[in-house]
Amino acid sequence: MTYEQLLYTVDGPLATITLNRPKRMNALTKVLEAELRTAIEQAGRDVAVRAIVLTGVGRAFCAGMDMEELEVLPPEDIQAEQWMRPYDMNRRADYQTRYSYFPAASKPIISAINGAAAGLGLVMALYSDFRIASEKAVFATAFAKRGLIAEHGIAWMLPRIVGHTHATDLLLTSRKIDAQEALGMGLVNRVVPADELMATVQALAHSLSTEVSPRSVGVMKRQLWEAPYQSLGEAITLANAEMVESLRSEDFAEGVAHFVERRPAQFSGR
Amino acid sequence: MTYEQLLYTVDGPLATITLNRPKRMNALTKVLEAELRTAIEQAGRDVAVRAIVLTGVGRAFCAGMDMEELEVLPPEDIQAEQWMRPYDMNRRADYQTRYSYFPAASKPIISAINGAAAGLGLVMALYSDFRIASEKAVFATAFAKRGLIAEHGIAWMLPRIVGHTHATDLLLTSRKIDAQEALGMGLVNRVVPADELMATVQALAHSLSTEVSPRSVGVMKRQLWEAPYQSLGEAITLANAEMVESLRSEDFAEGVAHFVERRPAQFSGR
Amino acid sequence: MTYEQLLYTVDGPLATITLNRPKRMNALTKVLEAELRTAIEQAGRDVAVRAIVLTGVGRAFCAGMDMEELEVLPPEDIQAEQWMRPYDMNRRADYQTRYSYFPAASKPIISAINGAAAGLGLVMALYSDFRIASEKAVFATAFAKRGLIAEHGIAWMLPRIVGHTHATDLLLTSRKIDAQEALGMGLVNRVVPADELMATVQALAHSLSTEVSPRSVGVMKRQLWEAPYQSLGEAITLANAEMVESLRSEDFAEGVAHFVERRPAQFSGR
Repeated sequence: MTYEQLLYTVDGPLATITLNRPKRMNALTKVLEAELRTAIEQAGRDVAVRAIVLTGVGRAFCAGMDMEELEVLPPEDIQAEQWMRPYDMNRRADYQTRYSYFPAASKPIISAINGAAAGLGLVMALYSDFRIASEKAVFATAFAKRGLIAEHGIAWMLPRIVGHTHATDLLLTSRKIDAQEALGMGLVNRVVPADELMATVQALAHSLSTEVSPRSVGVMKRQLWEAPYQSLGEAITLANAEMVESLRSEDFAEGVAHFVERRPAQFSGR
Repeated sequence: MTYEQLLYTVDGPLATITLNRPKRMNALTKVLEAELRTAIEQAGRDVAVRAIVLTGVGRAFCAGMDMEELEVLPPEDIQAEQWMRPYDMNRRADYQTRYSYFPAASKPIISAINGAAAGLGLVMALYSDFRIASEKAVFATAFAKRGLIAEHGIAWMLPRIVGHTHATDLLLTSRKIDAQEALGMGLVNRVVPADELMATVQALAHSLSTEVSPRSVGVMKRQLWEAPYQSLGEAITLANAEMVESLRSEDFAEGVAHFVERRPAQFSGR
Repeated sequence: MTYEQLLYTVDGPLATITLNRPKRMNALTKVLEAELRTAIEQAGRDVAVRAIVLTGVGRAFCAGMDMEELEVLPPEDIQAEQWMRPYDMNRRADYQTRYSYFPAASKPIISAINGAAAGLGLVMALYSDFRIASEKAVFATAFAKRGLIAEHGIAWMLPRIVGHTHATDLLLTSRKIDAQEALGMGLVNRVVPADELMATVQALAHSLSTEVSPRSVGVMKRQLWEAPYQSLGEAITLANAEMVESLRSEDFAEGVAHFVERRPAQFSGR
């Protein structure tokens, strides 16, 4: 695959997707949007890849939909393209729409938020499994300042991350918050100096790739995203079925063996 | 409209409702309860009003149901009057009951918590969109000390704001917490010195009235309160339909124009 | 009742259950698992008991399922024994499964987390109503390091306590966190020096036993655990029905009387 508007690199178990429109603050175009989805799928199919990092070139993470695209956007287009081709038939269609497909990836996605994450840029970060922010990161929902609404499921997702009070604040006021305030709200996992961002993210990705079973990570990610649709009884029934499967897996055998033998794990992911 | 037990004032885009029974710590009576609902509806109909502030005269915000009323309350009355006349047929009946009707108001409601918020006083604050507290504010669910239960939906609402752990603590122990502890739990948006409370709240109301589209605020408030009833797919379908409408609105045209022209916005709300 | 692997003591209104396998870090065996359930039920039936404390002997709270049991566990056993005999027909079956039965106890359960709470040990703490931690406590989901999955409903419960972001972090990375980080996430109610843990927990249990109506506590605990299954309208309907009952209770009469008479309450629990 070659990409026009993003960079895609693989280093060992880590795939890095870097939005590459720095002059436009990595704002999304139709091309970039399609390439991002293709890149996530490519990383998903690559058996060597165990974690996916998403970041941006330059000062911004992603400033949202490019205003130049927005002004010419045919309104019908929005509704017509909500439901994309599902790429994993074992996952809910809800997690495979035009913008909400990160939850269906079986590998963890880490947003390395190097600068502004606004509008659709913030939405993408919210659908990631981890959000690590540079001290220089700023966050804004941005929609209400444009006369727009809570787009792409953010009114559903944001309260699950920061609670109802902060979600209301961020959506209704549309105000910018810095990385420290984001941390206080639980919007991000961690804030680090700008020059330590990628090292921190790579250490996390490394840990997810070596210290835990990739099989476990994939199953647990799915369990977490299924939970909002389940009763506790259903969640337990699914957990028990997955537990039986896991007890028969290579990774469980290794998980016990490396513990008993007091050595680093060597998970196959099977 | 004239009111006996509250003050209702409008200053530009801001309606202020002030509970006015300071000798009874602004405890609710049947009269005050009815007047409050009327005042919220009055502010909702006034096209000049873009934000609603709720506060109290004197030392307390609202100490809950007046004990003198509670002692003579016919139990049957409670169940008989749960479902009030709906005042907005486009909103869920759940958000138009006797005490849970703040969510159905299309305008943001800011509780300026100047002192004690207890029992039903706390419930009202929880159904507000913003909670700004004076350093002198104190909070208590209070029910368990009276032999009562989690009233008026607080067992549903409180965990959405502070999570299951803190909600359990506040309801079961019935203990008083101060403003700083409330802030740490995410129970309030912000804590300020007592003499800065109204200026802070007015600045927030001003921002909600001028810097963002009132149309956007109304739609997003509804999206946030619909989210607990939706799957993510349903939330996205609603968002997409609302997005199409918003792209055709005056406020969207203005939202783009003021951004491109680098000037303050002048939203019509249409 | 006599117990082999735990200690059961009653002191006034407080039942204390102490896991007693210190050499195995209080890891669960089939025997201990069964005894714990029996002890919780015993405390529930004892009319003198108003609060239940769960803690561990020695350095650990509970290190999870004993690895020696896990290695010989027949996978079929897990699914076969999910649904246990319900012990309270008025409670949801979901809250009466093999490991998720703490919510069905009508009395508050306080986990006094004296040391490591890992895997199933953490799950038990999460199903408790309060979590008070020693400064020496450490927490880990642990499953992904063993090649296992999010067991026993933790993928459903953990986001309700710490939100989606922290739940994902704790489950996918499987990393250990200390008591202060747990407090920051809202995973525990409070952190105290190790030598103050039991006094702090006993003071809380004492408060729950004397300052609030045990009847109220039982009803509110049920309301809180029902909320995830309810619409707001259903929650309000239940609250109103419970309010009518409570207004006719001895504890309501006492709740008003001790307030008016400015004396400590003497709740009968009826």
